[in-house]
Amino acid sequence: MTTDTTVLDGLDFPAPALAVADDVADLLFREARTVAEFLPGEVSDEQLAAVYDLVKWGPTAMNTLPLRLLVVRTREARERLAAQMSEGNRERVLAAPVTLVVATDTGFHQHLPTLAPHAAALKDVLEGQPETREQMARTNALIQAGYLIVGLRAAGLGAGPMAGMDFAGVDAEFFADNGWKSLLVINVGNVEGTGTPRPRAERLSYGQVATSV
Amino acid sequence: MTTDTTVLDGLDFPAPALAVADDVADLLFREARTVAEFLPGEVSDEQLAAVYDLVKWGPTAMNTLPLRLLVVRTREARERLAAQMSEGNRERVLAAPVTLVVATDTGFHQHLPTLAPHAAALKDVLEGQPETREQMARTNALIQAGYLIVGLRAAGLGAGPMAGMDFAGVDAEFFADNGWKSLLVINVGNVEGTGTPRPRAERLSYGQVATSV
Repeated sequence: MTTDTTVLDGLDFPAPALAVADDVADLLFREARTVAEFLPGEVSDEQLAAVYDLVKWGPTAMNTLPLRLLVVRTREARERLAAQMSEGNRERVLAAPVTLVVATDTGFHQHLPTLAPHAAALKDVLEGQPETREQMARTNALIQAGYLIVGLRAAGLGAGPMAGMDFAGVDAEFFADNGWKSLLVINVGNVEGTGTPRPRAERLSYGQVATSV
Repeated sequence: MTTDTTVLDGLDFPAPALAVADDVADLLFREARTVAEFLPGEVSDEQLAAVYDLVKWGPTAMNTLPLRLLVVRTREARERLAAQMSEGNRERVLAAPVTLVVATDTGFHQHLPTLAPHAAALKDVLEGQPETREQMARTNALIQAGYLIVGLRAAGLGAGPMAGMDFAGVDAEFFADNGWKSLLVINVGNVEGTGTPRPRAERLSYGQVATSV
């Protein structure tokens, strides 16, 4: 990294070194791609548990940890999910080694006495505030979804996140009983190492997204 | 990792190896902590740009990249921000080396012709759908906030995310002109290496958050 240069506000300067090696930065971000077609090979529950056991440490507001995962493996479940996806995403769900419905638990507050003992009283307060709960659940599970995508890559897996779906339909199909709300779907499977030659889409620069006061 | 064991549905098994070394997993997730007090030392714009240049590669729906950052440095800006924070968070904003207001741009669609040329027509469609835009903006910027927190740690920085704030107040104070919406605030600064002795809060296990179909 030390020989790269970055343009910030028209000024060239050597990019500061990261605390992780280039191959890690490549694996997690720079060379990773959203995957549409996976290599053959299963993804085990043990692999998914190892990913979760990594990303569960990422911070959430008051340690609420509202992220929930529906692991879709069987042919019958894949077809039920595919029926709720946008047309262009259906075949991907049917073909992926495993598909995760990333969801949030609007009943996350039940765990607060364990997860945040200093805020245990909030459990009863939130019981009477379903709208606040739903907003907290969505916000924090989406941040955790970001950790999850990085974590899948840290486990050497490829991730194909998709948002083209009927969220209410997915919730009715799979979460009628548990109060989970679907946020996105991620196909997961094996991929080749980093360095695919496919060109990357443009990104906004730091100068385009950041402003200082 | 290969000698660790994880309990999944009551069954012990050796945890699969990650594709990153233990020190990386520790730095990004396992030993990282939400930071309330930082070591002395500035955080430069160059460091923040390097973090963004890493995390900008993380996937968003249609490459929308709605994350925006307000970098709060001056005493006057810190005080304006602190006035919008919950009481317990004010001193932290005033004391942090630098504070980021993580926001989303509800006008993200203006960039679609560059970021997603195949979906450029969506720019005009979304122009007339402000509610859809706001939802897309929030969802995808929150996922990017997850990448950002990992990216700050990958740059060796400590992150102290906070959600106890008056979001509408922050938006009125800082984003009245640009249509950004605040999502959370992150204090950023230098920290000691991994391995702080402070005990971690509980986490939910994979068996508690995941179910299979």
